[in-house]
Amino acid sequence: MKPIGPIPEGYGVLDGELAVAGVPVSQMGAEAGRTPFFAYSRSLIERRISHLRTSLPDRIKVNYAIKANSYTPLLEFISGLVDGLDIASGGELEMLQQLGIEGQRVSFAGPGKRDAELEAAIAAGVTLNLESENEATRALAIADRIGTTPRLAVRVNPDFELKGSGMKMGGGAKPFGVDAVRVPDLIRTIVDAGCEWRGLHIFTGSQALSAEAIIEAQGNILALADRLAREADIALPKLNMGGGFGIPYFHGDEPLDLDAVGGALSRRLESLPELLSEADFFVELGRYLVGEAGIYVTRVIDRKESHGETYLVTDGGLHHQLAASGNFGTVVRRNYPIAIANRFAEEPAEEVNVVGCLCTPLDRLADKAFLPRAEVGDLVAVFCAGAYGASASPSAFLGQGPAAEVLI
Amino acid sequence: MKPIGPIPEGYGVLDGELAVAGVPVSQMGAEAGRTPFFAYSRSLIERRISHLRTSLPDRIKVNYAIKANSYTPLLEFISGLVDGLDIASGGELEMLQQLGIEGQRVSFAGPGKRDAELEAAIAAGVTLNLESENEATRALAIADRIGTTPRLAVRVNPDFELKGSGMKMGGGAKPFGVDAVRVPDLIRTIVDAGCEWRGLHIFTGSQALSAEAIIEAQGNILALADRLAREADIALPKLNMGGGFGIPYFHGDEPLDLDAVGGALSRRLESLPELLSEADFFVELGRYLVGEAGIYVTRVIDRKESHGETYLVTDGGLHHQLAASGNFGTVVRRNYPIAIANRFAEEPAEEVNVVGCLCTPLDRLADKAFLPRAEVGDLVAVFCAGAYGASASPSAFLGQGPAAEVLI
Repeated sequence: MKPIGPIPEGYGVLDGELAVAGVPVSQMGAEAGRTPFFAYSRSLIERRISHLRTSLPDRIKVNYAIKANSYTPLLEFISGLVDGLDIASGGELEMLQQLGIEGQRVSFAGPGKRDAELEAAIAAGVTLNLESENEATRALAIADRIGTTPRLAVRVNPDFELKGSGMKMGGGAKPFGVDAVRVPDLIRTIVDAGCEWRGLHIFTGSQALSAEAIIEAQGNILALADRLAREADIALPKLNMGGGFGIPYFHGDEPLDLDAVGGALSRRLESLPELLSEADFFVELGRYLVGEAGIYVTRVIDRKESHGETYLVTDGGLHHQLAASGNFGTVVRRNYPIAIANRFAEEPAEEVNVVGCLCTPLDRLADKAFLPRAEVGDLVAVFCAGAYGASASPSAFLGQGPAAEVLI
Repeated sequence: MKPIGPIPEGYGVLDGELAVAGVPVSQMGAEAGRTPFFAYSRSLIERRISHLRTSLPDRIKVNYAIKANSYTPLLEFISGLVDGLDIASGGELEMLQQLGIEGQRVSFAGPGKRDAELEAAIAAGVTLNLESENEATRALAIADRIGTTPRLAVRVNPDFELKGSGMKMGGGAKPFGVDAVRVPDLIRTIVDAGCEWRGLHIFTGSQALSAEAIIEAQGNILALADRLAREADIALPKLNMGGGFGIPYFHGDEPLDLDAVGGALSRRLESLPELLSEADFFVELGRYLVGEAGIYVTRVIDRKESHGETYLVTDGGLHHQLAASGNFGTVVRRNYPIAIANRFAEEPAEEVNVVGCLCTPLDRLADKAFLPRAEVGDLVAVFCAGAYGASASPSAFLGQGPAAEVLI
């Protein structure tokens, strides 16, 4: 038997079924119209953001990194709850423009921005987090050509990392941002060129569960921002401190202690150095806002035995939930939290492998998991599916096509 | 420095550029209209299939598993060169039907076939490779309801594996097929129910480069097929022996010795047991037919330095080439064959990291590769991109959208 990850807070039982905010999974399915589907909970997103607002100092603004989940209704909903939105491509900018979101609320990071993307962003008044000196030159030339003052920030490749993070974005050679040592010169160049100076973006890593590590990284970020501002001899109007707040996916993972992070940040903001004293401070979060608010639901098509093991074969799979299959940035496959959604009140009774419908051994949703006995037609829910699920999976693989999505 | 994989045969230089069958990469790009793009070579596909035809005994038929690459023009082209087509979903059936391909040429394997998929396949005269007793029951009931005689084969979960294969599909508990020990009973059930009996499908693994391992697996497959036919007391009209023929991706990989495989198979077919003597024999190949015939081409957007390392940032990435990034079924990331396509005649001159445009450290196309010096605007080609590239990658990730595709 292999353990499964912890089921996030906010999920309960209603008439024996998995439910969230009073909506049972059968009702979500009726709304989706078919399986497999993703269901995202407004209530859980709201609760998470409100927890952030109470834990973090008032001065900290919250940005949503839309790469985590850009399902249109979710994007529309969350854009009313956060202070700003972070994008990573021209395609994501178009999504926001279609919702009528002002460019002034948006910033754009990404190491490979095409000229057309730079132009669209500058024209829309989006803040560009510059990733290199070359990109700065291109952005200034484009802004000059279209007669717009560009809103420019510099993304810093910091000399330190976020300890224990799932993905490290700093501490050594990286494709992201500009090495800290070269940042002051770049600041002077773009400020002298007449841009609207928008400060710094310092991202150190993602998916960290240790408050201590995040507190340490935030301290380093503030110190680095101050040092760079002093070297460039300019005040910071804005500091994007990145995110890094993780969510528990696997057995043994503990939720991040948000109050500890907020407390430490409060104390730091009380004694800011002069060049940071007027800055707007942002955290940029994706997964932390929406990851636990989503489930992926797929139906059992077959129940079969092979060499003494039981397989539940579902109509879903890695084409919708690549990360849960263990094929996205993970070395050792571990089980996400998973449940038989229409038997959520039943006790575990057997060890099963839950697989997808694809004809590849990679397509596995749970390995030797201890679950209530499930039959053909039952629903399997995979939790922590609100971020990097639908959008980060190869939905066209084997001609399957995308899952349905609903916001409940 | 880390080595890169071997560049496949058939690629050469034309006016300093990478070219295949007389077409330089700039001409492919003009046809594609934008970067990034995939280019697939008719000539290399033809050459590979003709090599198969001369190496394998005449009696062996060749099926194409369309999951490897279902780009419509490629599918149309290859369907004229192979004997049959293998699908893994109702979506793939629709692709073939849109091309006017007869159901009689098609067989359908996959552990999670929905009722609607079974019905569409039975109605079209497609052979179903049954994956379980439940699936047999469902297929027979559907056929009865729609008044059609179903064409049924049984997919066997063999007790042995293909040694050294990239993915093992046999040898122990598996979600695929029916354990060999239960196959004779299932054969009797479906034959007694009046189906059109289509024999067995025995798939042992994929992506093996050792002729010896494939020869051994094929011997085991023939012996198992004979044993199961004798136990069920029925002749086999067809035996799908699976594939498993690998292609070299990484440094040190040697191409499969196809002549050795063909020679051994010839000798085996000379002395077939009675119940196999009238069978049609098929190999089912995907990657082996198209993998090396395709390249993925992306443009350098930025060239930057970080802590002494050089990064070429391209407009492509893992959203089109997940496998090359090392995030699809691989534990240790290794470099695919890669080249600066518009400087294909130049000598390597520097060590670079080639990354995609996505804002994640996972998005890496080459690690510390020794390549000719490349500038912004140059083209990077990733080889072995003809199979499991476009279709097996999360093209919507970060709002990027799919790459262009051309058949040349």
